[in-house]
Amino acid sequence: MAAKGPECIGIGLLGLGVVGSGVAQSLMFKAEGIGEQVGCPVILKKVLVRTLRKKRPLKLDPSLITTDSNQILDDPNIAVVVEVMGGEEPAHTYIQRALRSRKHVVTANKEVMAKHSSNLLRMAEECGVGIFYEASVGGGIPLIGPLKRDLVVNRVSSIYAIINGTTNYILSKMSSEGVEFNAALRVAQDLGFAESDPANDIEGTDAAYKLAILAGLAFRAEISARDVYREGITGLTEHDFRYAKELGYAIKLLAIGTDLDDAIEVRVHPVFIPESFLLAKVEGVYNAVQIEGDMIGKVLFYGEGAGAMPTSSAVIGDIITAGRSIVSECGYRYRVGCIRSKVVSPMSQIETRYYVRMSILDQPGVLSQIAKVLGDWEISISSVIQKEADPASGTAEIVIMTHRAREESMQRALTKMRNLRAVKEIGSFIRVEV
Amino acid sequence: MAAKGPECIGIGLLGLGVVGSGVAQSLMFKAEGIGEQVGCPVILKKVLVRTLRKKRPLKLDPSLITTDSNQILDDPNIAVVVEVMGGEEPAHTYIQRALRSRKHVVTANKEVMAKHSSNLLRMAEECGVGIFYEASVGGGIPLIGPLKRDLVVNRVSSIYAIINGTTNYILSKMSSEGVEFNAALRVAQDLGFAESDPANDIEGTDAAYKLAILAGLAFRAEISARDVYREGITGLTEHDFRYAKELGYAIKLLAIGTDLDDAIEVRVHPVFIPESFLLAKVEGVYNAVQIEGDMIGKVLFYGEGAGAMPTSSAVIGDIITAGRSIVSECGYRYRVGCIRSKVVSPMSQIETRYYVRMSILDQPGVLSQIAKVLGDWEISISSVIQKEADPASGTAEIVIMTHRAREESMQRALTKMRNLRAVKEIGSFIRVEV
Repeated sequence: MAAKGPECIGIGLLGLGVVGSGVAQSLMFKAEGIGEQVGCPVILKKVLVRTLRKKRPLKLDPSLITTDSNQILDDPNIAVVVEVMGGEEPAHTYIQRALRSRKHVVTANKEVMAKHSSNLLRMAEECGVGIFYEASVGGGIPLIGPLKRDLVVNRVSSIYAIINGTTNYILSKMSSEGVEFNAALRVAQDLGFAESDPANDIEGTDAAYKLAILAGLAFRAEISARDVYREGITGLTEHDFRYAKELGYAIKLLAIGTDLDDAIEVRVHPVFIPESFLLAKVEGVYNAVQIEGDMIGKVLFYGEGAGAMPTSSAVIGDIITAGRSIVSECGYRYRVGCIRSKVVSPMSQIETRYYVRMSILDQPGVLSQIAKVLGDWEISISSVIQKEADPASGTAEIVIMTHRAREESMQRALTKMRNLRAVKEIGSFIRVEV
Repeated sequence: MAAKGPECIGIGLLGLGVVGSGVAQSLMFKAEGIGEQVGCPVILKKVLVRTLRKKRPLKLDPSLITTDSNQILDDPNIAVVVEVMGGEEPAHTYIQRALRSRKHVVTANKEVMAKHSSNLLRMAEECGVGIFYEASVGGGIPLIGPLKRDLVVNRVSSIYAIINGTTNYILSKMSSEGVEFNAALRVAQDLGFAESDPANDIEGTDAAYKLAILAGLAFRAEISARDVYREGITGLTEHDFRYAKELGYAIKLLAIGTDLDDAIEVRVHPVFIPESFLLAKVEGVYNAVQIEGDMIGKVLFYGEGAGAMPTSSAVIGDIITAGRSIVSECGYRYRVGCIRSKVVSPMSQIETRYYVRMSILDQPGVLSQIAKVLGDWEISISSVIQKEADPASGTAEIVIMTHRAREESMQRALTKMRNLRAVKEIGSFIRVEV
C-alpha cells in the first residue's frame, strides 16, 4: 500500500560555500537514507550562487546552478528552501519570501535568526510552514530541537555556553602553552580556525548572536542581538591565565543567559570558572552548552560547533523534519507558544564575583587604600595575591578576588581605584562565575 | 479561529511510584504550559495502582485512582497511555494492548524496551500511533529524540556511555576517597543512590538494557538485551584505582557500542579511560553519552540519569510530542526505517588494550615468564609497574598494560599465566579504551 503524500520533495539551496557544499554533497550521497527517513525522495532542484565563474571543489550538474533567486523562490516544485549564505541581507529577504510562498525554510544563519527570529517564527506560523534553525547554533550539536521538544516542559533558569570555537581555541592555547593573545590568534588563523578578519569572533559578536537565539527559545522571550552585553577576549594576558591556574580556575568566553523571573540577563564576556566545572574542560574548537531547568536540573550538550559536515548534519536533520511534515500532509504547526516581553537587565544590575589584576606602587598602605575603596562600595574581598615587587620599576602586581557584588558598585570602585595615586594600572577585570 | 482537533487529550497513567508521582504532579502543576505547547488541554484521566491502601505523599482525587487496568486500556477518552510501572510484566502486556487500541504509548521502561523494542515499534507503526521512550535511558537527558531526529542522517560508528548513576557514584567515591567497593556501596545505599538489592546496577544489567536501546536506535539494528556482554564492578579494588591514577586513567563502568559495518559490538564492563577524556570527568550520579557519527563527529550529552523530576521531564516531553501529533490529526508516522539484522560479535572477537594486576612470587625470572606467555599470544606490553615486594609473604604486585590485542588471545594468555607456578593470583583484569 502506497503512502499518501508527494512523489518527491524538492530542495532549493541558497548558497554554495563551505556549508552549502556539505549540504549538497550529503543530499546526493545520502539520498537513499534521507528518502527512507522522510518517506519519499528528497531532491536537490536548484542552487543559488553569486557567480557562475567561481571554481568549486564540488562538481554539480550545471543545470542545477543559478544566479537568479527567483528560480528557487518562485518554483512551485521546491517545497523546502535551505539558506546557507550567511549575513543579514539578502538572506533575510529571501527567507521572508520563501515563507510567504509557503515553503519551509531551513537556515544556518545566526545573524538573521538573532535579529529577526520573533518575526520569522510568527510569519512561519501564520503561513503554516516551519522555519528550522538547528544549524544556527553549535554546528551539529542538537540544541534547538531538544529545547523545542524534549525539554519544553522545563522552566529554564540559566544557560552557560561556550559557543564560539575560535575564541575557545585561542583561550585553550593561551592557557596550555602560556602564549599571548596575538600569538594564539595567529596559530588559529594558520589552522583555519579563525578568519583573516577575526573581529566577529574575538569581540564576542558571534557568541552574542547565538546566545540571543538560545535564550529567546529557552526563556520564551523576545531577545534581540542588541540586548546582549558583549565583551571580547583581546584584553586577556598570559598573566591572567597564570593567576587563574593558581586560584583553581579556567578562563572561558562564556555566553550567559539567566531568567530571573522579573528580568533576563544576557551577556557574553570572559569568565573565571572553577576548574572542576565540566565547562572548564571544554578545550579547543569544541562547544558546550549547559542548560538548567526546574525539572531536568543541569544538562550539557557538547560537540563540534562549526565545520561543513557537523553543520550539514544539523541542516539535513531539519530538512528531514520538514520533509516528514510535508509527507504527513498536516502542515507544520510548531507553536511558538506564549512569547513574553521580558525586561533585559542592564549590565550595571548584574551580580557576580570579580577578579581584578592591577599594578601598584610598592609602598606601605596601598593595599589598605584599595581595600577601603572596595569597602566603601560594600564589596568584600575573598582573596588577595601579591607577588614580589619589581625593584626596577618600583611597582608590584596585585590580584584581588571579591565576593558577590553588584556590577554598578564594582565599576564605580574601579573608577575610584584608577584615580588612586598608588595604582599605576588596572591590568584586567574579569567576572567570576561559580 | 479555533484550531481543528480534539477538545482535550486524556492521559492514563500506569504506575504511581516515584516517577509516576512526578509525572502526575507535573501534569497538574504545569497544565497550562503543557496545554499551550500541545494546542489543547492535556488531562490526567486515570491512574493505575497496585493497591488502594498504600499511603502516598501525592494527594490525588480518589476517583482518578483504579486498580483495574481495563479502566485505562478500554477507555476511548484516553488517547495516551503513560507506562511508568517498571519491570517486564504486566507492563509489556499493557503496552501491547494500548497500542492495539490505537493509543499512543509513553514509557520509561528500559527492560521492556531493551527486550521488545523491535516488535513494539513495528506494532506502533502498524497501528498508526507512536511509542515514545525518551525516559527509558538517561533520565531527562535528550538522547532518543536527538537520535531519531537531529542526528538521523549520521551513520553512527560508536557509543561510549556512562548510563548507570549508581555505579558511577560508587566508582567516583572509590576513586576520590580511596575506599573499597563495599564501603562505597553502603554510602550509596544510605543516600538512596543504590537499592537495598543493588544487583541490577552493580552487575551491569541496567546499563546493558539501556545500551541495547541506544545501540538499536543508533545502529538501526535489532539488538536485544541478551546480546549485550556484561561485567559488573564488584571485582574492582582500591589498588586498581591507585594504579589507574598513577598511569593517568580513570575507571568507569562504560556501555560501549560499536558498528563495525559487518558486525556490532555491544558490551558493558569496567574500563580504564584516559583522564583527559570528558567522560573521565563525569562524577557521581551523573550520566553522559558520547555518540560518534560520520558527519557530526563526537557529541556528548550529559545530565542527571535518574530521579523523579528529570525522568518526568522526559515523559512529559514525549506526552507533548504525542499530543501535538493528535492535535494535528495526521496520525503519528515515525518511520522505523530499514532495520538491519546485524551480527553481534562475540566478546572473544573484540580488540582492545588491557590492564592486568597480579601477585607474583618475588624471585628472579618471573617477569620474563609472564612476558613470554603474552608474546606467545602476540600480545605486546606497553608498560609495567612493579612495586617493592612484601618480604613477609615473599610476593610482589605487578601491573601490566598491553597494546591492542584480541580478547580471545588475552583470555588464553590469562589462563596460561594463572597456571604459572610463580603467579599467585590474577587480581584484576580491566579493558583499556583510548
